[in-house]
Amino acid sequence: MKKNIELLSDEAIDDLQLDNLYLIQKKQGFRFGIDAVLLSNFANVKNKHRVIDLCTGTGIVPFLIYGKYKPKEVVGIEIQEDMVEMAIRSSKYNEIEDVVSFKNADLKDLKYLSSLGTFDVITVNPPYKLNNSGIVNLDDKLAIARHEIMCSLEDVIVASRKLLKDNGRMFIVHRPERLIDIFELMRKYKIEPKRVQMVQPNINKAPNIVLVEGQRDGGAYLKWEKPIYVYNEDGTYSEEINKIYGREK
Amino acid sequence: MKKNIELLSDEAIDDLQLDNLYLIQKKQGFRFGIDAVLLSNFANVKNKHRVIDLCTGTGIVPFLIYGKYKPKEVVGIEIQEDMVEMAIRSSKYNEIEDVVSFKNADLKDLKYLSSLGTFDVITVNPPYKLNNSGIVNLDDKLAIARHEIMCSLEDVIVASRKLLKDNGRMFIVHRPERLIDIFELMRKYKIEPKRVQMVQPNINKAPNIVLVEGQRDGGAYLKWEKPIYVYNEDGTYSEEINKIYGREK
Repeated sequence: MKKNIELLSDEAIDDLQLDNLYLIQKKQGFRFGIDAVLLSNFANVKNKHRVIDLCTGTGIVPFLIYGKYKPKEVVGIEIQEDMVEMAIRSSKYNEIEDVVSFKNADLKDLKYLSSLGTFDVITVNPPYKLNNSGIVNLDDKLAIARHEIMCSLEDVIVASRKLLKDNGRMFIVHRPERLIDIFELMRKYKIEPKRVQMVQPNINKAPNIVLVEGQRDGGAYLKWEKPIYVYNEDGTYSEEINKIYGREK
Repeated sequence: MKKNIELLSDEAIDDLQLDNLYLIQKKQGFRFGIDAVLLSNFANVKNKHRVIDLCTGTGIVPFLIYGKYKPKEVVGIEIQEDMVEMAIRSSKYNEIEDVVSFKNADLKDLKYLSSLGTFDVITVNPPYKLNNSGIVNLDDKLAIARHEIMCSLEDVIVASRKLLKDNGRMFIVHRPERLIDIFELMRKYKIEPKRVQMVQPNINKAPNIVLVEGQRDGGAYLKWEKPIYVYNEDGTYSEEINKIYGREK
């Protein structure tokens, strides 16, 4: 049930259709998409886990992780102050601020990261466009969410190395064309890629999203999952996607 | 039409169903499979090209490449002397020994490789099992074809770096669980991975074969193709595989 809430004029509150959770988002601007849903589904989280979500934005991934797995603690960190403030209001609205918290921090600040302790699980949906590739969107918030302006893929992996417990796992959603870089940087910082799943628009199209699981100091063996196909050939959502979105018939 | 040929008692000659080409193989032992067919289909070869196939075995890939693309020259190199002798007899039987030749050589012999000049295209279906993984088949020829006994993946990439022309392309077929190593070694020796295609038994199974194209000193951009599905859900060959095998209806 939706309770009363004071929203800014440019904000909306959306029902996540999961465990009665809601999310405050800007009406215009970065709104969560399938990446966040696929990432939270791909992550392997247990009740006893401490989880941290990097580049958390509105906090969508922490809320989905909380709704799906009920871990002991979920922390989201985000460099944009107004996004963090919005995520904190969502957490309060959902009355889970004792479990799901948000920090306004730069993940390049390794000293600050140390103060958070270590985590069983990291999730991250980082900016996926190289900062040198094409025109950067002039709306700063969108640009920061999509391009490697405030942090590079290497910054994300370095922070993950710092934040993971021994043998802890990180789960990242990215673009297939960056998979060489992901593998290379994970190995460089001793987070061994262990599992990959491609996501295709349908069976006849090339993958356009990739999910990668890495393990801190893990042994070398890479498992490939069967791909996820988002749409059926008739353009309706696939059964698998409906399940992931909790829309099982 | 099949001509008369003297075969050893343990040999058979098989019709490749392509351009009236035949291949001598052992009745028992390493016989060509789908890897060779997929690799020759994935390779991008032009009339004017010099092509070399590493770890060529019976010469199946050079014959398929010749049949499909009619390049100026195809050389196959193989460390097992009796395999090379058999491949040479196949080439003579097909009356193409002026275009398709075979050398008995160790691809770790970089000095010898230099004597061959450089190539526009390299194809390779290397032994794909790590030599430390599980029991090595006691039949030596099979073991050498399948395990990294006589050459490692790194040896293959080093040889390829040596043999490729500037901006020349290599095409490799391997197993998805080794893709991190393939990417890492290609980048180490400055053969940039440019294109990947996964092969799945069917749409519901994880990929079990991967095809990778690399370019000597190429720029970093990785293109993913849609996967190839070998079988339909009813267990018959997919239309795509029938096309690749030249069995179009």
